[in-house]
Amino acid sequence: MDRPQTIADIDTPAVLIDVDRARGNIARAQAHADRAGMALRPHIKTHKLPFWAAEQLAAGAVGITVQKLGEAEVMADAGITDIFLPYNILGSAKLARLAALHGRVAISVTADSEPVVRGLAGAFTDPAHPLPVLVECDTGMGRCGVQSPQAALALAQVIAAAPGLGFGGLMTYPAAGGQAECLDWLARAKALLEAAGLPCPRITSGGTPDLWTSQAGGTITEYRPGTYIYLDRFQVAKGVGTAADCALTVLTTVVSHPTPDRAILDAGSKALSSDTLGQPDFGEIPTLPRARVTGLSEEHGTVTLNGESVAVGDRLRVLPNHACVVSNLFDVVHLVQGDRVIDILPVAARGRLG
Amino acid sequence: MDRPQTIADIDTPAVLIDVDRARGNIARAQAHADRAGMALRPHIKTHKLPFWAAEQLAAGAVGITVQKLGEAEVMADAGITDIFLPYNILGSAKLARLAALHGRVAISVTADSEPVVRGLAGAFTDPAHPLPVLVECDTGMGRCGVQSPQAALALAQVIAAAPGLGFGGLMTYPAAGGQAECLDWLARAKALLEAAGLPCPRITSGGTPDLWTSQAGGTITEYRPGTYIYLDRFQVAKGVGTAADCALTVLTTVVSHPTPDRAILDAGSKALSSDTLGQPDFGEIPTLPRARVTGLSEEHGTVTLNGESVAVGDRLRVLPNHACVVSNLFDVVHLVQGDRVIDILPVAARGRLG
Repeated sequence: MDRPQTIADIDTPAVLIDVDRARGNIARAQAHADRAGMALRPHIKTHKLPFWAAEQLAAGAVGITVQKLGEAEVMADAGITDIFLPYNILGSAKLARLAALHGRVAISVTADSEPVVRGLAGAFTDPAHPLPVLVECDTGMGRCGVQSPQAALALAQVIAAAPGLGFGGLMTYPAAGGQAECLDWLARAKALLEAAGLPCPRITSGGTPDLWTSQAGGTITEYRPGTYIYLDRFQVAKGVGTAADCALTVLTTVVSHPTPDRAILDAGSKALSSDTLGQPDFGEIPTLPRARVTGLSEEHGTVTLNGESVAVGDRLRVLPNHACVVSNLFDVVHLVQGDRVIDILPVAARGRLG
Repeated sequence: MDRPQTIADIDTPAVLIDVDRARGNIARAQAHADRAGMALRPHIKTHKLPFWAAEQLAAGAVGITVQKLGEAEVMADAGITDIFLPYNILGSAKLARLAALHGRVAISVTADSEPVVRGLAGAFTDPAHPLPVLVECDTGMGRCGVQSPQAALALAQVIAAAPGLGFGGLMTYPAAGGQAECLDWLARAKALLEAAGLPCPRITSGGTPDLWTSQAGGTITEYRPGTYIYLDRFQVAKGVGTAADCALTVLTTVVSHPTPDRAILDAGSKALSSDTLGQPDFGEIPTLPRARVTGLSEEHGTVTLNGESVAVGDRLRVLPNHACVVSNLFDVVHLVQGDRVIDILPVAARGRLG
């Protein structure tokens, strides 16, 4: 098939990325971080593309964040030289891969328990080239992380005592709406560390929902938003941007219109994912404001039209609830400017689960 | 890395398929179909592997079912010669791909509207080699399909009138618990067709939940179960099998144990999917019967231990809610017998969205 020149040439389902919107989102976040006195370290989980990582760095980011070793490897292969992997790395296979990365890029990781630090200390033993390890802090989200500032200090001391590791600072992902509690937690931990004579080079927080309200305030030095580059229905609901800022849509075709109020799209949970993130349904269609994607099976999306009109064969762009998981479901994305297709990129870091 | 010899050698997260259990499930379903006088045409969406398609055919299946053209292409490339694609195929790009498949394997499709039939009739014009088109019937599920037996007859007549198409019969996917209503609907449509002089060579239904209660009863000639080969937590809840019949598990590592009742796995929604299918959480762990996977983010699974004991570094096998979507998230699966790894297969038809 010839390479599509316009959106009308793209077969469905397909992911479209509006590059002007994405670039606007990159610029706005970087300007905010600059004003707030924080380094920006974007999380590439949203786009999984070296293309956008390079644009984020060119705009002023200090490096990137990844969530799995496989993502770090893809980005290192693409020439990215400063990578933060905020994950507990365990087991000989993964430690060997981490060591290989440490030999060629600046990579830092996190730990939240002594077993994880012991594993790292066994694999990294060169005092001349220590691996930076940050302590992951559970400041209210209830996922990973040490449970108190005192526990953060204790684990930092274990890291600092390991010859081949360097204490790299504190990392957290704040609870939804828990920004104040998070900043207080981190400030107390920082004070304990300083009192113990342990400098804390980075205090890194993240999350697009809290991007505009994040404040350095002398505590946070670095911020790791991910979804801000594309935005999605969830982020619009959180007030992070408007539907007109959303860069990622899924291009679909109406394959069936069995009843007046029901249309079926060729995009189901394999294209949009079942993530609702608390939204009441699975997506909306900006050109049909009253319609909602009210059901998904693997290859079908059920649209309740609520009075909107469609015909079999119509092509519709769906705004999904959660952009990051959509990137993970497609092998390629189409970069568009207006109706023009400017490139088709393989989602290089898709499916890197380990 | 050396090829793993036992499960202990596999890095996580990874999909394990217990081949003895899968073979038992294949044999039981084929024996049931044989007893019930129905042809079995397994849906490969669950496994997406030519390996299992070949075993299903060897056990007695008449052909396979796929849901997208891309899946049909993968299976045709692997040597499968009888493929049913119960989907409305629209647009010149997809019609050209369908024509290429029609030139090399026995392929049949469905339609549920005149626009779809018109598209097919324009692309297939050879009366000497007609494309079999079945009418999709909405017998209660509320997805695609004509809405009444009368509408099925009307569309069958449009198909039969197209020189390059052949009316292939009726297809449905029954509503949950709607087997009796479904059979009545199809019997009425069949009677209308016969009265109009249109023979109905196939009446095909599907769904693993209703597999054991499906009855030919002179109406259904063919059944298309998918998940029966692996089963999953949803199917066990439906009574289709027991946990001891489930062939697919996700091997994970406990990466964090921040509180006494909380453990974090290295498998999140990118490994297990957010599909609950009505289950109250995201998966269970057969070796820790009280524990439940109560939360997922993309790369983390939160386990509420409910009194079970784990340690950081433990490796656990999670039984997911929905096996099919897990297959779609991994590039490879590990075939195991007991603890032994007998092969690693690429999920050849993964991510075939178009």
